[in-house]
Amino acid sequence: MTAWSVFEITGIIAFAISGALTGIQKKLDVFGVLVLAITTAIGGGILRDVIIGNTPPLTFRDPTFFIISAIATIGVCFTYRWLDKFKHTIQIFDAIGLGAFTATSAKLALHQNLDSVVIVTTVAVITGIGGSIMRDVFVKEIPYVFRQEVYAITTIAGAISFYYSQFYFTGNIPLYLCFVITTGLRICCIKYGWNFPVIGISAGKKAPPDNQQPGT
Amino acid sequence: MTAWSVFEITGIIAFAISGALTGIQKKLDVFGVLVLAITTAIGGGILRDVIIGNTPPLTFRDPTFFIISAIATIGVCFTYRWLDKFKHTIQIFDAIGLGAFTATSAKLALHQNLDSVVIVTTVAVITGIGGSIMRDVFVKEIPYVFRQEVYAITTIAGAISFYYSQFYFTGNIPLYLCFVITTGLRICCIKYGWNFPVIGISAGKKAPPDNQQPGT
Amino acid sequence: MTAWSVFEITGIIAFAISGALTGIQKKLDVFGVLVLAITTAIGGGILRDVIIGNTPPLTFRDPTFFIISAIATIGVCFTYRWLDKFKHTIQIFDAIGLGAFTATSAKLALHQNLDSVVIVTTVAVITGIGGSIMRDVFVKEIPYVFRQEVYAITTIAGAISFYYSQFYFTGNIPLYLCFVITTGLRICCIKYGWNFPVIGISAGKKAPPDNQQPGT
Repeated sequence: MTAWSVFEITGIIAFAISGALTGIQKKLDVFGVLVLAITTAIGGGILRDVIIGNTPPLTFRDPTFFIISAIATIGVCFTYRWLDKFKHTIQIFDAIGLGAFTATSAKLALHQNLDSVVIVTTVAVITGIGGSIMRDVFVKEIPYVFRQEVYAITTIAGAISFYYSQFYFTGNIPLYLCFVITTGLRICCIKYGWNFPVIGISAGKKAPPDNQQPGT
Repeated sequence: MTAWSVFEITGIIAFAISGALTGIQKKLDVFGVLVLAITTAIGGGILRDVIIGNTPPLTFRDPTFFIISAIATIGVCFTYRWLDKFKHTIQIFDAIGLGAFTATSAKLALHQNLDSVVIVTTVAVITGIGGSIMRDVFVKEIPYVFRQEVYAITTIAGAISFYYSQFYFTGNIPLYLCFVITTGLRICCIKYGWNFPVIGISAGKKAPPDNQQPGT
Repeated sequence: MTAWSVFEITGIIAFAISGALTGIQKKLDVFGVLVLAITTAIGGGILRDVIIGNTPPLTFRDPTFFIISAIATIGVCFTYRWLDKFKHTIQIFDAIGLGAFTATSAKLALHQNLDSVVIVTTVAVITGIGGSIMRDVFVKEIPYVFRQEVYAITTIAGAISFYYSQFYFTGNIPLYLCFVITTGLRICCIKYGWNFPVIGISAGKKAPPDNQQPGT
C-alpha cells in the first residue's frame, strides 16, 4: 500500500463520515444512511468517470473504496454521539482526501485526452464536490458548497498547478505538488475562516451549519 | 413474448403509475406528470446503463418500455381517483417488476465483466431504486426508500442469490431464483410491515405516505 | 463563425443568465452562482452526451461554451439589478438557443444510430430541459418546466419535424426547419401565454415566478 492509497482512504473515510452524519441527522433509516454515506464518499468519482467516459467507473471495477465507506458508515452508526468531538480531525482528513482526489482526477482527465486547463480543472472540481452535492440534494438541502465555504477554490488551485507543472516536471512531482497545494490551502481556509462573498447580502450574516463537511 | 417480458412490463406499468400519481398529487402539469412517470419507470435502468457503460441505454435502443410507460401515464390521468382502490394490486405488480429488473440487471452487470458480488448487487440496487430516487428528488422529497421501507434489501438478497447460484446452475435458473427471492421477500415485507430501524429515533413514529410506491 | 454558432452562443448566454439570476436570488456565494449558471447553460448537453454514450461530452472536448457561460455569469454579477428590464429580450435569446440545441441534438441522436422518432425526440427534450431541471433541483425547487410552462412541447414539435423531414430533404434543410419550428413556436407561447393544463386544479391559479427562464 503506497502513501497515495493512504491519502485516498483517509479521504474516503472522512467523506463517508460526513454522509453518514447527515443521514442520521435527517432521520433516514439504516439503509438510507448507508446509501447516503457511500454516495458522498464515492459519488464524485463515479460522476467523473461517467462524464469522461471511463466506464465502468474505477470504484465498480475495484470495490475497495466501496467496502471502506460501508465499514466507516457502520462505525459511525455506533459512535455518532461521540464523533462530534473529533470534528476538526475529520476536517483535516477531508482536506487530505480532497488533495488526493484532485490530483488523481486531474491526471485521469489528461489520460482521457482532455488537454485543456479549463476542463482538467472542471473534472477535478466535479470529483471534489460531486459527492457532497448529491448528499445535499438527497436530503433536500441547497448544496453546502454553493452557499458557504471556499471549498472548491482549493481544488481549482490544485488542478491548475497540476496542469502547468506537468510541462516542467516528470514522474509524480505534479501529482504531489497538486496534493500539497490543495490540501494546504484547504487547511488554511478552515483555520482562518476564509470565505467567498455572497452577492447582494453580507456573507457573514449566515452561521455555517455545524456538522457538514463536503465530501467527494 | 416470453414470461420474462410480461414480468418486466408489469413492473414498468407499476412504476409509471407510482410516478404519475406522485406528479398529479404535486400538481405538475400534464407534461411534468409524463416526465415524472417515465423517469420513475425507466430512470433506474438508464442510470444503470450509463454507469456500467452500456450506452446508449437499452430503453433508448428499443423504445418499447418508453411507450408502455407513456400509455400507462395517460391511463392514470383519466383514472387516478379510482386507482386508489387498487393500491395493493399495484404493490404486487411493483414487486413482480422489482424481481424481474433485479435479475436482468445482475445478469447485465456480469456481462460487463463486473465480477464482484458487491458490485453486481450495487448495480441491481441502482436499477431497483434509481427511478424512485429521481422521482422524489424532482418533487422535493427526501427519497422514500431512504426513510421508510425495506425496499432495497429484497433486491440485495436477490442479487446475492443470483451471484452465487450462477456458480452452481446454468441457463436461466439463477435468473428465476433471483426473481422468486426478490419478489417473494418483497411481498412478505408488504404483508408483514417489516422495516429498518432509524438510528436515534423510533421508526414506528412516522406514518408512511399513502400513494408512494418506489419504482425502478 | 457560422450563423449556427451565433444561435447556439445566443442560447448559451440566455441559459447562463437564467442560472446566474436564480443563484443570486437564492443567495448562493460567487462560486455557487458560477456553478449554477454553467450547469444551466451546458448541463443539458452534457446529460445528453453521457446518456447517448458520446463521451467525453462535446463541451469537455471544446471548452468554448464553458468559457462563454463563465463570462456571461461574471457579467450578470455586475448587472443583475439592471437585467430585469431586458427580461423579454432574454426570453427571445432563450428561444433561439432552444431551437438551435434541439436541432443539434436531434442530428446527434441520429448519428448515434438512435433511429426512432420517440428516442430522437427524447434526446432533444433532455438537452432542452436538462440544464434547467438541474438548476431547479440544486436550489430546491420543483423543476419549473414540470409545473408551469409549455416549454418542452416546442422541442418535441421541432424534433419530430426534424426526424420526418430528413427523409425528404438533404443537407441542412431539416436542421433549419427544426430550428424555425422550435423557436417560432416558443416565441408564440411566450407572446400568447399558452399553457398545459394541470390535472385536478386550474392551471391559471398559480402565478409564474418572475425571473426563471428554463435553460439547456
